[in-house]
Amino acid sequence: MKQETQRAAFDNLDLLMDPRSVVVVGASDRPGSIGQRSITNIIEHSKFQGELFLVNATRDEVMGRPCYRRVEDLPYAPDLAVVAVPANVANEVLEACGKKGIRFAVVLTSGFGEAGEEGKRLEARMRQIPGETGIRIYGPNCPGLTNTNKGLGFTFSPSFEHDRMTGPIGLATQGGGLGRTFLQACERGVGIGLWCSAGNEVDLTVSDYINHMVSMPEIKVIVTLLEGINDPPRFAQAALSAAAHGKPIVALKVGKSDYGIKATQSHTAALSGSTDINSAAFRQLGIIEVDDIDELIDTAALLARGVPKRDARVAIYSFSGGTVALAADMLGLAGLTLAEFDPATDAKLRELLPAYAAFDNPVDTTAEILVKPEISFGSLLAVAQDPNVDVVLFPIPMEYGATTRAAAENMVKVQAQIDKPIVPVWVSDRVGEGYQVMIEGGLVPVRSVGKAIKALQRWNRFGQCQREFDASWLPAICTEAEGSMPDVRKVYGEAEGKALLARAGVPVPRGHVACNAQEAVDIAAELGGAVVAKIASADILHKTDIGGVMVGLRTEAEVRAAWDAIMTSARNACPEARIDGLLIEQMADLKQGVETLIGVHRDPLFGPILTFGLGGIYVELFKDVSRRLLPITPRDATEMIRETRCHELLKGYRGSPAVDIAALERLLLAVSDFVVQDKHHVLEMDLNPVIVSPSGAMALDAVLVMAQEA
Amino acid sequence: MKQETQRAAFDNLDLLMDPRSVVVVGASDRPGSIGQRSITNIIEHSKFQGELFLVNATRDEVMGRPCYRRVEDLPYAPDLAVVAVPANVANEVLEACGKKGIRFAVVLTSGFGEAGEEGKRLEARMRQIPGETGIRIYGPNCPGLTNTNKGLGFTFSPSFEHDRMTGPIGLATQGGGLGRTFLQACERGVGIGLWCSAGNEVDLTVSDYINHMVSMPEIKVIVTLLEGINDPPRFAQAALSAAAHGKPIVALKVGKSDYGIKATQSHTAALSGSTDINSAAFRQLGIIEVDDIDELIDTAALLARGVPKRDARVAIYSFSGGTVALAADMLGLAGLTLAEFDPATDAKLRELLPAYAAFDNPVDTTAEILVKPEISFGSLLAVAQDPNVDVVLFPIPMEYGATTRAAAENMVKVQAQIDKPIVPVWVSDRVGEGYQVMIEGGLVPVRSVGKAIKALQRWNRFGQCQREFDASWLPAICTEAEGSMPDVRKVYGEAEGKALLARAGVPVPRGHVACNAQEAVDIAAELGGAVVAKIASADILHKTDIGGVMVGLRTEAEVRAAWDAIMTSARNACPEARIDGLLIEQMADLKQGVETLIGVHRDPLFGPILTFGLGGIYVELFKDVSRRLLPITPRDATEMIRETRCHELLKGYRGSPAVDIAALERLLLAVSDFVVQDKHHVLEMDLNPVIVSPSGAMALDAVLVMAQEA
Repeated sequence: MKQETQRAAFDNLDLLMDPRSVVVVGASDRPGSIGQRSITNIIEHSKFQGELFLVNATRDEVMGRPCYRRVEDLPYAPDLAVVAVPANVANEVLEACGKKGIRFAVVLTSGFGEAGEEGKRLEARMRQIPGETGIRIYGPNCPGLTNTNKGLGFTFSPSFEHDRMTGPIGLATQGGGLGRTFLQACERGVGIGLWCSAGNEVDLTVSDYINHMVSMPEIKVIVTLLEGINDPPRFAQAALSAAAHGKPIVALKVGKSDYGIKATQSHTAALSGSTDINSAAFRQLGIIEVDDIDELIDTAALLARGVPKRDARVAIYSFSGGTVALAADMLGLAGLTLAEFDPATDAKLRELLPAYAAFDNPVDTTAEILVKPEISFGSLLAVAQDPNVDVVLFPIPMEYGATTRAAAENMVKVQAQIDKPIVPVWVSDRVGEGYQVMIEGGLVPVRSVGKAIKALQRWNRFGQCQREFDASWLPAICTEAEGSMPDVRKVYGEAEGKALLARAGVPVPRGHVACNAQEAVDIAAELGGAVVAKIASADILHKTDIGGVMVGLRTEAEVRAAWDAIMTSARNACPEARIDGLLIEQMADLKQGVETLIGVHRDPLFGPILTFGLGGIYVELFKDVSRRLLPITPRDATEMIRETRCHELLKGYRGSPAVDIAALERLLLAVSDFVVQDKHHVLEMDLNPVIVSPSGAMALDAVLVMAQEA
Repeated sequence: MKQETQRAAFDNLDLLMDPRSVVVVGASDRPGSIGQRSITNIIEHSKFQGELFLVNATRDEVMGRPCYRRVEDLPYAPDLAVVAVPANVANEVLEACGKKGIRFAVVLTSGFGEAGEEGKRLEARMRQIPGETGIRIYGPNCPGLTNTNKGLGFTFSPSFEHDRMTGPIGLATQGGGLGRTFLQACERGVGIGLWCSAGNEVDLTVSDYINHMVSMPEIKVIVTLLEGINDPPRFAQAALSAAAHGKPIVALKVGKSDYGIKATQSHTAALSGSTDINSAAFRQLGIIEVDDIDELIDTAALLARGVPKRDARVAIYSFSGGTVALAADMLGLAGLTLAEFDPATDAKLRELLPAYAAFDNPVDTTAEILVKPEISFGSLLAVAQDPNVDVVLFPIPMEYGATTRAAAENMVKVQAQIDKPIVPVWVSDRVGEGYQVMIEGGLVPVRSVGKAIKALQRWNRFGQCQREFDASWLPAICTEAEGSMPDVRKVYGEAEGKALLARAGVPVPRGHVACNAQEAVDIAAELGGAVVAKIASADILHKTDIGGVMVGLRTEAEVRAAWDAIMTSARNACPEARIDGLLIEQMADLKQGVETLIGVHRDPLFGPILTFGLGGIYVELFKDVSRRLLPITPRDATEMIRETRCHELLKGYRGSPAVDIAALERLLLAVSDFVVQDKHHVLEMDLNPVIVSPSGAMALDAVLVMAQEA
């Protein structure tokens, strides 16, 4: 995998997506075979204008067209090979394609990493072919490529001919089934311009397809459906490029529970990765994460209609009081804001609607007005044109035949006069003509109130990310892959670790290591005030557990007594440990501050990860932590703190004073810099506790483990 | 409202739901009028066999039928009056109906509590009529009554004729719109046998309708859609009766956010109540709470197919690897259990399915088998018949025409051979014949993977409640309405409060109030060990804030010094306070225990509420509390503790010893008994902290406020 993850640059994929010439290897006319269906999709259902070659090892003609026996026999190298041969000969074919000079291959064949040891062996070999021959491989174990906007299908799917609504959404998946689900959202008016289904990703990955979609002007929203991220640095690079271009990425990542992780293994053989880390990475990269396939569709479709330019204020409008109350209720729970109408809107509604309607937002026109389309139109227009409204949510609870049809027609007419989106929800299981009217009018009705609210929430959140987008994000995250890591693991003693950190700008208590009791007394005298004595030994990690720490030492006698007591305890508990002496430090006033923790660990996929959270015993109990890939930006530092509930404590809670949050942010950034400047080396860092008080932030303890040359 | 909430008994509503004779008051033939539509629904769309009278103040004939001018003129009192007159004459009509001896009135008219001051006045008057005349009122401000199973509609809804699938679900709502949404779920094969839409509930409430549905053998599941609970004791009684009969109640309560609460006010004028308390009450009453209208439908439909007899083990089966992975992932996140297949199932699947299928649960047959219906049938049957499987989740990600139709037909065939439910999910927006096949086969396809998982989770949870159902629940909760509360609020001093609690079995520290320094010294000596001194005054609530508490006093001198210091502080801080002396108590060892809190407050709807949670500053930060209506059962005490994350601390956390949880449960029960025995009096109780240690549980501080006679 190293080889792929190091390839940070992206190839131009234009000739893969829109080739001038294509060869189908494994061409067949056996009905239902992959070869036959692939050719049919190209010849009968695509608008492919270029030259099409067929290759079959034993036939001279397939479907009435001449056939070559071998790739080598082709008159020239076409841009794309579509490979539909059995798994055991696929590598041979790909080698031949590569040697012939073919630039891209779409490998439809299954039976590789997802299918046992023999498959894994074949796949490992396939991974070598691009490096050896220069061919770039799409797949294997995938249904192929669907370029709807160009009318091209290099796929064996019998549904290709049915699911071909053009549109502004680019879809990059690993598996095929749920991609098809998304394509069938064309029934709701959601058009996918390009679908890349990456399969086992032996070479090209979802990251390549996302990057390509960023460059496509006709693609406004990128959607990805992942079972694992096989090349995090390149994924991050593609995502940041999308953010820089203002193109939202909406992601559904399967593999958040043990059951899911196990199931993805046997499906696309992807490494699922840690849910926490994946979600932290998505947030940091500006990716909108969703939880279900319908949410993926709803969110993408809404973003394709535009992005809010300010924190969106929502109008809710319908003809059922219970329905608008339910929608308003959920809106409030989701933390979204109901618009306050302009007085002119209020006046207009009072003029148009019956006296027993609800004029305030949420508006309940009552069902009586359904029979008066002009009132229905006027009142919706008034709400939609209100300058305080950024989006209108219109839940329709039931199918009422001609009257709901008229409501839908009004909605479409109003939408034609305004820029902000009207988002209808068709709640009923009975689908009537009105539903179709909305779809034809481009309104993409959602099918559940709660799902609509979720889509609004994510749409609004993306607008916020977009407004806050900072180009300084760009060079930062993960763009460099892991190099070779030195293989000796060095555990630093507390004093040594703190000295390193202090040089990097991380505040730690003043102190020194004493080699004997007299030195301890001298150091304590020099520090002044109460001191802490801690056993100094890289071999002893849990110092308090073995009686290796004493606090509040004020007199010479107390320091001497501490020396004796700690040395005795340590020698008894850890007779093998190499002991450097006692670390004597100024004692911090714990009561003045909030106990937090900062940690770094190394994720197998994403590399070094920073964790911040509440310290003490509550960190595990309440899982009150936030995470980021490294390095972080100042904005990340601010957000990391705000995301935790311990932020409330830091701001000053129930009479306790506010602490110096800016100092904590500086400390987080100093840790980030330290790790990144030395990123191939820090394996683990644990600053616990980090005390944050009104006068600053300080790491009272430090565990540091780095990789070093032998 | 008192009058209603005290009526604990439920009237028999048979003649309301299935009357032998009916009068429509406000009969009209003006097209689209409420009177006209109501009559049409009775005459043309109902199977009503009884006698129908019409009343119109100015007409002798309506729709070709004779008409009476006044209710008084009717030859006899019919069982039911359907009232469709304007709001300003409704009360007059109802009085006449009541005096005539009519048992029930369905009042369709709007313009009461939901519509301004005049409406509120009219509604207040309407509330008096049942007491005066004996008539029972259904409504007003409601679309009427739909008794689908009997083919009766006393409603003005033009949809009555369309939404009439009989079925095992009873629906009790306040508003009308979302009730209609639910009725239209007949399109998915969900049949509502009886829909009661309570409107403004001037007399009969949702509780009456639920209670009636409990008594109907053909109703298996009760669904309620609430904006507020107007009569909590009667609601609790109806809910407990449903639980005793093993009938699930599924509830959607609108009004969980400020927006929602405001919106419900202007809709059905219901008092929304506190979300926390409502949800606690639902849990305690065995009611399944859901968050959206589609979840209400999905959950009710699944429960109507049966209830799991053990913790359900789920099989996931489909022909798409990504789809089963997504479903398994969500299943894991929801805390549900994937079944482990019997070896015979595994062998059968390996025999039938292609080598590259996934045989383990979740099963991915791969799409190839869709063209072989006999394999599709055999493999699904093998999974469904596995003795370790309690339910099969079959998500269908896309419409594939004839092949998905065949899959649906197989599903129906397999379902015919087994008792456990097969739950299909039709994920795609393209709906094909297969979808209809499932509906006709009674399989009620869900439309979203996540929503299906939620339904399974709630279905399974109800099974658990059902298995754990304990008849001792029955007499407990809220069955007695609040009587008249004495109006003097008495705040107890800590010592006095603790003495009362100690007599009720709540452990408190040993101690006495000293009236002078010498008494303080004597009490300390008698108690032995370290003592705590606290100012004894009912006028000083926040003792620590004014320097009113000193701890760890060991010597006579320390106790004397404490007397002087505390008295000085208290007199300076609260010169007006009446001071009884110093409470001298044994000092508890805080380090040995976990700090929790127990509180009682009085909810305006549900009466006294018990709260348990983590003590200290974290209680507000993490909102780690559980709540119950009073009194609680021993099972409630156990669950209250388990519901909080502080349960982890209590069980022994990171090396600290487990504490005496049984003692804490006893303390909760003692508090419950104390409040209930004296339930009309405790206004507020705050035991904070309650220290729970390995040797017991003890309330270290107590604030007690009771209502007393003047």
